Amino acid sequence: MSEEKLPTRKENFAEWYNQLVLRADLADYAPVRGCMVVKPYGWALWENIQQALDHRFKATGHVNAAFPLLIPQSFLEKEKEHVEGFSPELAVVTIGGGEVLEEPLIVRPTSETIIGYMYSKWIKSYRDLPVLINQWGNVVRWEMRTKLFLRTLEFYWQEGHTAHATAEEAQEETLRMLNIYADFAINDASVPVVAGRKSSAEKFAGAASSYTIEAMMGDTRALQSGTSHNLGQNFAKAFNIQYLDQNNELQYAWTTSWGMSTRFIGAIIMTHGDDQGLVLPPRLAPIQAVIVPIYKTEAEKASVMEAVERVKAQLINFRIKVDEREEVTPGFKFNDWELRGVPLRIEVGPKDVEKGTVAFARRDIPGREGKSFVPQTQLEAQVAEMLQTIQASLHERARNFRMENTHNPADYAALQEVVQAGWAFSWWCGSPECETKVKDETKATTRCMPLEQPGGEGPCIVCGKPSTEKVIFARAY
Amino acid sequence: MSEEKLPTRKENFAEWYNQLVLRADLADYAPVRGCMVVKPYGWALWENIQQALDHRFKATGHVNAAFPLLIPQSFLEKEKEHVEGFSPELAVVTIGGGEVLEEPLIVRPTSETIIGYMYSKWIKSYRDLPVLINQWGNVVRWEMRTKLFLRTLEFYWQEGHTAHATAEEAQEETLRMLNIYADFAINDASVPVVAGRKSSAEKFAGAASSYTIEAMMGDTRALQSGTSHNLGQNFAKAFNIQYLDQNNELQYAWTTSWGMSTRFIGAIIMTHGDDQGLVLPPRLAPIQAVIVPIYKTEAEKASVMEAVERVKAQLINFRIKVDEREEVTPGFKFNDWELRGVPLRIEVGPKDVEKGTVAFARRDIPGREGKSFVPQTQLEAQVAEMLQTIQASLHERARNFRMENTHNPADYAALQEVVQAGWAFSWWCGSPECETKVKDETKATTRCMPLEQPGGEGPCIVCGKPSTEKVIFARAY
Repeated sequence: MSEEKLPTRKENFAEWYNQLVLRADLADYAPVRGCMVVKPYGWALWENIQQALDHRFKATGHVNAAFPLLIPQSFLEKEKEHVEGFSPELAVVTIGGGEVLEEPLIVRPTSETIIGYMYSKWIKSYRDLPVLINQWGNVVRWEMRTKLFLRTLEFYWQEGHTAHATAEEAQEETLRMLNIYADFAINDASVPVVAGRKSSAEKFAGAASSYTIEAMMGDTRALQSGTSHNLGQNFAKAFNIQYLDQNNELQYAWTTSWGMSTRFIGAIIMTHGDDQGLVLPPRLAPIQAVIVPIYKTEAEKASVMEAVERVKAQLINFRIKVDEREEVTPGFKFNDWELRGVPLRIEVGPKDVEKGTVAFARRDIPGREGKSFVPQTQLEAQVAEMLQTIQASLHERARNFRMENTHNPADYAALQEVVQAGWAFSWWCGSPECETKVKDETKATTRCMPLEQPGGEGPCIVCGKPSTEKVIFARAY
Repeated sequence: MSEEKLPTRKENFAEWYNQLVLRADLADYAPVRGCMVVKPYGWALWENIQQALDHRFKATGHVNAAFPLLIPQSFLEKEKEHVEGFSPELAVVTIGGGEVLEEPLIVRPTSETIIGYMYSKWIKSYRDLPVLINQWGNVVRWEMRTKLFLRTLEFYWQEGHTAHATAEEAQEETLRMLNIYADFAINDASVPVVAGRKSSAEKFAGAASSYTIEAMMGDTRALQSGTSHNLGQNFAKAFNIQYLDQNNELQYAWTTSWGMSTRFIGAIIMTHGDDQGLVLPPRLAPIQAVIVPIYKTEAEKASVMEAVERVKAQLINFRIKVDEREEVTPGFKFNDWELRGVPLRIEVGPKDVEKGTVAFARRDIPGREGKSFVPQTQLEAQVAEMLQTIQASLHERARNFRMENTHNPADYAALQEVVQAGWAFSWWCGSPECETKVKDETKATTRCMPLEQPGGEGPCIVCGKPSTEKVIFARAY
């Protein structure tokens, strides 16, 4: 960590983010334009995200598998909207083993096509359905404007791909996974998200309908944080995924796909981070509590380190780090772990030894207000409670921030103003014309029609036509 | 599962293997030549392997990270032996985002080069050392002759990359990881391996020295099952990984790399499999025990299923599957789970209900001999004990098989004969000429100079010169 201060979020949010990712050791730029190296601290965070999601996938009957990285170019062309959506973003392998390939291979940007091809081989009868497979892996999309975690040429994600006998089951699955994403975001990441449906213009290339969880970042911009797509029979028809039903008749299957990526690390940083650095939610933090010993003399050191050992021994069920560095001061350590977003700091000094206490310092409430002194006994329960408190408080703060910055503009002029620094939650007639007008004139896009709607109807914020659904307009990452 | 029988291993070992991989649902062929799809059952096995290794890596201070898939072509060229070794096997991206790239990008065949580049940025001082990073991921090598799991264009693996201040530390790390691989293979996979050093001809392209664990497959061929390389200062010099030592002098670091891949699944299949199918070691098996209910009448079904529920409830600490399929017979189920290698079958029939027992059938001992009847109480302890017994017995059987088929040929003529169906453990002078002669005349290669040596010296099995080390000659996958 360098001693220099981060820019504040107010000064320059983009620069605050970029420097923070680098200085907190989450990621680094790779030598290939637009690619990133996820450093051990960032990857440990991703591993915790993976576990939290994987556990939920398995509990709902999904299994993991691995499909190839390289996809024949012709596969991409089988679904019309899909190829249109992805062809500008492809990385193409044209040489293999020193020879020019007869058919170029695409480095997967997503795997609907190759998985569709395999499903057409595996699925024969209604007895083979549903197929509920997820894959953890990397994909490549040739993005022009990149930003660490948010948009990189290569990124890491999971992509679920399921096949069902009926349209109803596919729709149920699509919403089940959307809800799993929302549950994870809210409960494990303390990121309050709005779950909703994408407009036609914003949906996945090849989907019948797309759903999303949208989160508000610290600069009030929206971040699409996970998506779940009902693919209808589009890919089943393109890849001939057919099964014999109970009446021995051949039917096309109904498929879904859903994904969440390392982009979500960006959501965590920009939802909770403050001017001192990262603030990580306790359930996902690679280090949940850091123990910092404080002493001046050798005699103090001996008694402090003895207490530190006793403290540590009580906390084996948490992800704990003892910062034993000798070459830096406790003050430096405080700043360092604040920058890295460790939720709880436990200080042990000579006075604590004397009194049989330790000092807790909450990352989410800097300064005196976040400090408390607790007895060295029953630390396990106290740390557990404090981490839960921090987890809940982060969610509440972010939720309040979103509510304060979500507006209900009275007319189109007001909408144009509020989306410059917030979200607008407004009636919309559903027409692409109104959507495009807003985008062109304000740079705000429709983020989603939230599943939770007020009901009734109102006039479209753009054209005034009666509308039955409200939409979120916002500038987005 | 089709009803057709597998070829026996004696009839056609290669065909037995290929059909078994497909029919046990471990993997399938992908539409791109030489690539595979790892199906859910195969991936669940890989996940268990990953966990067993990852746990060991973290316990020895390693952390995970992720480096890019795409490597600038020029990077490969910086280490002379490395580029010579890998250039025939490369997949090359020449087009990105619709444009021809100025510099083609290699899909990583291994990551020494790009990681070396990043380490040169990160490592400045002796305080930054050692760096102990591992990566789980996929790599691509354009192999001409492929075989599911054993040799595929894309495969999955972990690659550890470490940097150290001294040659001694790098060598210690190289052997530490070799021992971790051996410990995993023996204790978790019941695959008895021989740990040793590779000859110059067989070492990794760019390494100072390479170490390997070698296993004997059911046809007596050797399989290289994991490797650990001491890279000396080769990559540090190629990528300028330098640090200031305690005297403020600039030094090159010493690096290592080590990897184990989905190839190891092939090792498990070919070490333990029999003519009925897979035999999976209990510690890694995705399903450790399958419960098969047996009944004819509805009344029997009710009481049997009730007992099955009680049995299952006792076994929550194991990976258990209850086979409730109605459309197939118990006999079909027995064959099916035997094919898939589930270590223990627990049968529950009307007689068991009456007597308060269940039947255990061991996968490693087919037929009556592997069957026993145990009371329905204290099943947890009994299953744990049985799985441990099977785990140990698989290792013992494979170890005996290797010992029976490892020979100590008296002269070169005898060596030529024994390596056609076994290993030869012989003195070797170390010269490439003798090594090449054996390879040309018998197709057997030097597998390794085992770390455990008899000591003393003897005449080279090829040229008769006095030699101080014994080597394993064997035909290999």
